[in-house]
Amino acid sequence: MSGNVSVPRELAWLINKPVQEIDTPALVIDLDAMRRNVARMAEFAKKHGIAWRPHAKTHKSAALARMLVKAGAVGACVQKVAEAEILAAGGVADIYISNQVVALSKLARVASLAQMLSERTGSPGRLAIAVDSTEGIIRLAQAMNDARQIAGKACVIDVYVEIDVGQGRCGVQPDAAAVTLVLELRKHAALRFAGLQAYHGAAQHLRSLSDRREAIAQAAAAVNLTRQLIEAQGIAVERVTGGGTGCMAQETASGVYSELQVGSFLFMDADYAKNERDPAQPLFEPALYLKTQIMSTSNLYSVCDAGHKSHAIDSGLPQVASLDSPNSAELVYANGGDEHGIIRLADASLNDGESAHSALPGLGQTMWLIPGHCDPTVNLHDWMIGVSGGLRNGVVQRLYRVDGRGAYT
Amino acid sequence: MSGNVSVPRELAWLINKPVQEIDTPALVIDLDAMRRNVARMAEFAKKHGIAWRPHAKTHKSAALARMLVKAGAVGACVQKVAEAEILAAGGVADIYISNQVVALSKLARVASLAQMLSERTGSPGRLAIAVDSTEGIIRLAQAMNDARQIAGKACVIDVYVEIDVGQGRCGVQPDAAAVTLVLELRKHAALRFAGLQAYHGAAQHLRSLSDRREAIAQAAAAVNLTRQLIEAQGIAVERVTGGGTGCMAQETASGVYSELQVGSFLFMDADYAKNERDPAQPLFEPALYLKTQIMSTSNLYSVCDAGHKSHAIDSGLPQVASLDSPNSAELVYANGGDEHGIIRLADASLNDGESAHSALPGLGQTMWLIPGHCDPTVNLHDWMIGVSGGLRNGVVQRLYRVDGRGAYT
Repeated sequence: MSGNVSVPRELAWLINKPVQEIDTPALVIDLDAMRRNVARMAEFAKKHGIAWRPHAKTHKSAALARMLVKAGAVGACVQKVAEAEILAAGGVADIYISNQVVALSKLARVASLAQMLSERTGSPGRLAIAVDSTEGIIRLAQAMNDARQIAGKACVIDVYVEIDVGQGRCGVQPDAAAVTLVLELRKHAALRFAGLQAYHGAAQHLRSLSDRREAIAQAAAAVNLTRQLIEAQGIAVERVTGGGTGCMAQETASGVYSELQVGSFLFMDADYAKNERDPAQPLFEPALYLKTQIMSTSNLYSVCDAGHKSHAIDSGLPQVASLDSPNSAELVYANGGDEHGIIRLADASLNDGESAHSALPGLGQTMWLIPGHCDPTVNLHDWMIGVSGGLRNGVVQRLYRVDGRGAYT
Repeated sequence: MSGNVSVPRELAWLINKPVQEIDTPALVIDLDAMRRNVARMAEFAKKHGIAWRPHAKTHKSAALARMLVKAGAVGACVQKVAEAEILAAGGVADIYISNQVVALSKLARVASLAQMLSERTGSPGRLAIAVDSTEGIIRLAQAMNDARQIAGKACVIDVYVEIDVGQGRCGVQPDAAAVTLVLELRKHAALRFAGLQAYHGAAQHLRSLSDRREAIAQAAAAVNLTRQLIEAQGIAVERVTGGGTGCMAQETASGVYSELQVGSFLFMDADYAKNERDPAQPLFEPALYLKTQIMSTSNLYSVCDAGHKSHAIDSGLPQVASLDSPNSAELVYANGGDEHGIIRLADASLNDGESAHSALPGLGQTMWLIPGHCDPTVNLHDWMIGVSGGLRNGVVQRLYRVDGRGAYT
C-alpha cells in the first residue's frame, strides 16, 4: 500500500540530470511552481475555513494525491471507478467519486472498494459517490448489499445527491426532485446521505469576472433552495461539495460550499490566463509544460515535434512559454496535426521570409509549451518529469507515473 | 520476434463473449467491416498497379501491420522512431519513418534499428526515413557511421527527400532546394537516395471533389517539376511515396505516385463521411467504434460515459451510429467534457421535454459512436476489442493491443 512505483530504466537515468537531457516531446512539471501553487491553495483554504479535496482528474497520480493530503487536503476526488481503485492501491484513504455510476459491473467494484477502504482505515465512509437518479440509488444499494453478503460484514458508503446548478450535464434539478432522491437513499441502510454535489464547471471558463460571479450566485441560490427543501423534511445537509479553480474565490465567498474540488490550481491550464483575473483568487502559476524541439524549418514557420497527440486541444492550443529569451520575438503555436506543431511569429507583419527565418527558432532548438487543458493532456502521457530549479537550469528531481492514464471504466 | 502479445486477465475473459459484455467506454473494431476495407484496398492497388504502405499511425498495432502485409502491403509507415522500434519488435520487417528526425539521441536509435533490421532480413534497406534539411542529412549520416563503428559492419538506409506539395508543414520547396538535398545525401555512403516524400494531408479533408482534384493536380505538378530537376542531374527518382485515404483515387490517377501511405481506410473516420464522394474511390466503411453507456438522463438530453478523453476531437465530434433502431430518432453527440458526452435529438423541434425524454436513450442503454478522427482516438486506448458478426449480435474474437500508444519520441 506504499504506492511506490518502479521507474523504467530508460527514464530512471534522468534523475539528477540537467533539464537539457530530457528527450522531446515530454511532459514536465516545474516542481517549484507546483509547490508554490499548493502552498497558496492550502493558505487560502485555511484562511477561509473551507475544506479542499483536490480533483485527481488533473494529475492522475497517487503520489501527487498523497502529497496534497499531506499539504492539508481532506482527500481526493475522481471521476471514474478505475481512478478510485488506482488511488486506493496507491495509498490514498479518502476518495470521492464525484460522478454517476450506473453499470452493474462497475457498481460491484464500487461496493468492493468501499469495503476494502473501510477495513483498511478502521472507520467507515472513506469512499463516497454521487447519484442523480432513483435507479442509480437502487442499483448502488443492491451492489452494497451483495458486497456485504460476500464480505460477511456491513459497510456504509457516503452518497452525495448531485444537483444541476448550471452546468447542464449530470445532476437532478435543484428542487423537489433532489428531495425525492434524498428520501429514496435514506431507505437503504448501506447508503448514508452525506450532502449535495454542486459543480458548475462551465462557469470557470467565463472570461469576465462579473459573468463568473453571476453564474456562481445562481449556483449558490440553487444550492440554498435545495438545502431548504431537504431540511424542511428534518434531514440535515452535512456537506456541499463542488467548486473548481476558475471560480473558487466566488464559491468560497458564497458560503454554501463546505468543500472545494479544485484540481487545475496544481498545474494551471493556459486557458485560465484568458480569464479576467479575480483579485480574491490566489495567484497560481503554470507548472506543467510540454518540452518540444524544432524538427523542420522554413522561411515562414518552424515545425516542432509536439502535435495534438501530446497535448489536448479541447480548451485551445498551447501557448509558447518564453523562458529563455524574454525580449525575443513572441511566438505562437498553430495546429500541425497529430505529431507536429507550427511555430510562427505572433507579429504577422514580420512573416516576410528572410527576417522571419532569423527570428524563428532554429532546427534542433527546444521550446516549452503551456497546455491549453492540463487534465486530458496528462492523460496522453505515461510519465511526468519533475524538475527542480527552473526549466532553464534545473535538474530532474523526480518522475511521476500517470497512474490513472487510460482509466476510463 | 513473433510479436505475440499476452492479454491481461481482465480482458482475456471477453474472448468469445457476446458484444453486450464489453464494459464502457471501450474501443471496438468491427472485424467484418475492417476485413472488407482491407480487401477493397488490396483490390484497388492491384487493379492500378500501385504499391501500398499503410500508415501505422492509424492502428498503432504490430498485429494489424503484419495482417496488412499479408494482404499485400509492401510494409508500414510510421511517424516516430519509437513507433518504428515497436513495429520492428512486433515482427514488421519493412518500415518507413515518413517524418523528420533531427535529435541526435533519436538518430542513434534510427541507425541502430537500421542495422538490426538489415541483419534480421538479410537484405539491406529495410528501414527508410525522410529528410528535409542539409543539417538533418549530415546528422543522419553521422549516426549511421557511428552505428557502423559499433556494429563493425556497414549498413545503408533508404532516404526520401520530403518536398512540400501543399501541406505547409515539413518538406523543402519542390524546386532546386530539393536537388541540393539529393546531391548532399549522395555524398554519404550510408545513405541511399530512394525518392521523394510528397504528402498532402490537408487536401484529404477538402469537402468538394473538385477542390481535392485541384489540390492533388498541383501536388502532382510539384512532384513532376522536382523529379525533372533531379533527373536533369542524371539521378534517378526511384519512388514517389505519399497519398492518403482521402485523395488516393486522384493521387493514383495522377501517375506520379508509386506508393500510397493510406492509413484511415482501415477504420474510416467519421470526418470522411462529410467529403463529397469520389466514385473512383473504393467504398470504405466505418470499422472503429466507441461503445458507450448512458449514465444520466434529463428531459432534454441523456449523458453518456464517453468524453473527449476516450475519443479525439481535432476533426470534430463523433457521430452516433444507428445500429439497433434505424427508424428511431436520429441522435447527435455534443461535447460534455473529459468524461461525458451529451446526447440530444437531431431534430431540435422535438427537444420539448416529455416527448424528447421518451425518444432519448434511457439510463444504462448502450450506444455506438464513430470517432471523428481514428488515429489520435486509438492513441487514447490500450486495447482495441475485435468483434466478429456485427456490433448487434457479434462476439469478441480478438484483442489488439495499441502497441504504439504514447510512442512520442
